[in-house]
Amino acid sequence: MGKDAKDSYLVGLIGSGIGPSLSPALHEREAARQGLRYLYRLIDIDTLGVPPRAVGDLVRSARDLGFDGLNITHPCKQLVIEHLDALAPQAEALGAVNTVVFEDGRAVGHNTDVTGFAASFARGLPDVPLERVVQLGAGGAGAAVAHAMLTLGAERVTVVDALGDRAADLAAALDRHFGAGRAVGVTPDTLPTLLGRADGLVHATPTGMAAHPGLPLPAELLHSGLWVAEVVYRPLETELLRTARALGCATLDGGGMAVFQAADAFRLFTGREPDSTRMLADIAELAERAGAVGTPS
Amino acid sequence: MGKDAKDSYLVGLIGSGIGPSLSPALHEREAARQGLRYLYRLIDIDTLGVPPRAVGDLVRSARDLGFDGLNITHPCKQLVIEHLDALAPQAEALGAVNTVVFEDGRAVGHNTDVTGFAASFARGLPDVPLERVVQLGAGGAGAAVAHAMLTLGAERVTVVDALGDRAADLAAALDRHFGAGRAVGVTPDTLPTLLGRADGLVHATPTGMAAHPGLPLPAELLHSGLWVAEVVYRPLETELLRTARALGCATLDGGGMAVFQAADAFRLFTGREPDSTRMLADIAELAERAGAVGTPS
Repeated sequence: MGKDAKDSYLVGLIGSGIGPSLSPALHEREAARQGLRYLYRLIDIDTLGVPPRAVGDLVRSARDLGFDGLNITHPCKQLVIEHLDALAPQAEALGAVNTVVFEDGRAVGHNTDVTGFAASFARGLPDVPLERVVQLGAGGAGAAVAHAMLTLGAERVTVVDALGDRAADLAAALDRHFGAGRAVGVTPDTLPTLLGRADGLVHATPTGMAAHPGLPLPAELLHSGLWVAEVVYRPLETELLRTARALGCATLDGGGMAVFQAADAFRLFTGREPDSTRMLADIAELAERAGAVGTPS
Repeated sequence: MGKDAKDSYLVGLIGSGIGPSLSPALHEREAARQGLRYLYRLIDIDTLGVPPRAVGDLVRSARDLGFDGLNITHPCKQLVIEHLDALAPQAEALGAVNTVVFEDGRAVGHNTDVTGFAASFARGLPDVPLERVVQLGAGGAGAAVAHAMLTLGAERVTVVDALGDRAADLAAALDRHFGAGRAVGVTPDTLPTLLGRADGLVHATPTGMAAHPGLPLPAELLHSGLWVAEVVYRPLETELLRTARALGCATLDGGGMAVFQAADAFRLFTGREPDSTRMLADIAELAERAGAVGTPS
């Protein structure tokens, strides 16, 4: 049966603590609108009581049991790589996989965090200057987002992380891929100087999530000359975005990245074009509902 | 989420050479009419290149990856038992499982071949005499069908198999469960005498399937005083049924067993009541379509 004739899809998400994930709803709602029978299952290694390295066995089992593909999240995005048959260029460059597609018995790794953030940014902040970008956070999300920013044409990304080595390592990897001088890794003490002359701020730490409320940097460092892009999407309106908007900054919430990474994965799984506008409406509703449960307010 | 609120189900079939199975279509059509998102995946050990004893790993993986249940077929119906947490009485009595339900992390084995044949027989041949029943075939299907006939109240089932030991072993197991004298195992040379005084004939060998055409016994042994029940359902109209009907025998085709075993599994998986009348219409259409492809005629 060719991909075009297929109308049923079985996919899932492997990771730790993924119970509250909005991915099942995002994928299944879009699939339902397209008339597909589409199941998105959560495969939580905590619930199963297996270690992160079990991701290899889980991927093999999913292939054997007829899954069409998988999303992969923390803490398995790097660990899964050795169990795959091939990597798409974005995943190879980043050294992290968030999407696995099974085709003809082969498992191919992709990274739609990179393409998803890039698509969200291009849509939400299409005309902002990209000469000097400051990014908070050099973890897994930070690596994907920095790749996306440099792919979008940012001249220089300065990655700020309290773990100085982590920032330096990410910057070195970005330089190897995008060319010397495109990335620098620093610690937060340099933020006052950096932000004074930056075009924009990308936020890629967990601060601002329901479980980690607050601002990821002192409010007085923000100013009206910055655009501000957020990775956190629950809640969609973080304290950072609220503060930045009050100053008159152009802002981008994290919902777009969540939607476009899901939309890109949906396209890879099904070969069908998702309607990202409808999916953006979904996440607004879903994140609000989840926020109402998950936050103290 | 309680079973009642659930609207998506993931199930599958583990076995050898199951590509042509009609179970995916039977289950998925009924589920679609009930407004469920329901995927029925084929997990063929031949395609996977694993031995029958791999059924244990496959069942565990299916549970871990979010399956709601499984059907199990040849050659895994006995092998699967040691990997389950509990058995329903029919499965325990028969020593064979064709349906596994995952509930709260436990795997419970059932046998809907027994209940399915019983339901089909009660519906299709409700008023026939059951004093002396002759059954051809003491394999896996034969064991299930003999259990069903004795459960339905047959006084004595004589099991006929070219492998005399297999017939004797099945008869001994039936006697242990249903009481001494209820079953006898014999070889085919006794058929002329047996059928001369029998009420009905149950056919439970593969003869008559597209790949094994023909009659499972000499035509001259059939007579108008017999009812004839068939297990083969592809094609629905076997040479045995055609010959028997020409003699004026009341007959039962194999489609009913296929439908009711699927309907019973569907009920176990979902907690919802399937509409077996609609499923009988489905199998008539599906078996005809499959027959048109699979038989030389």
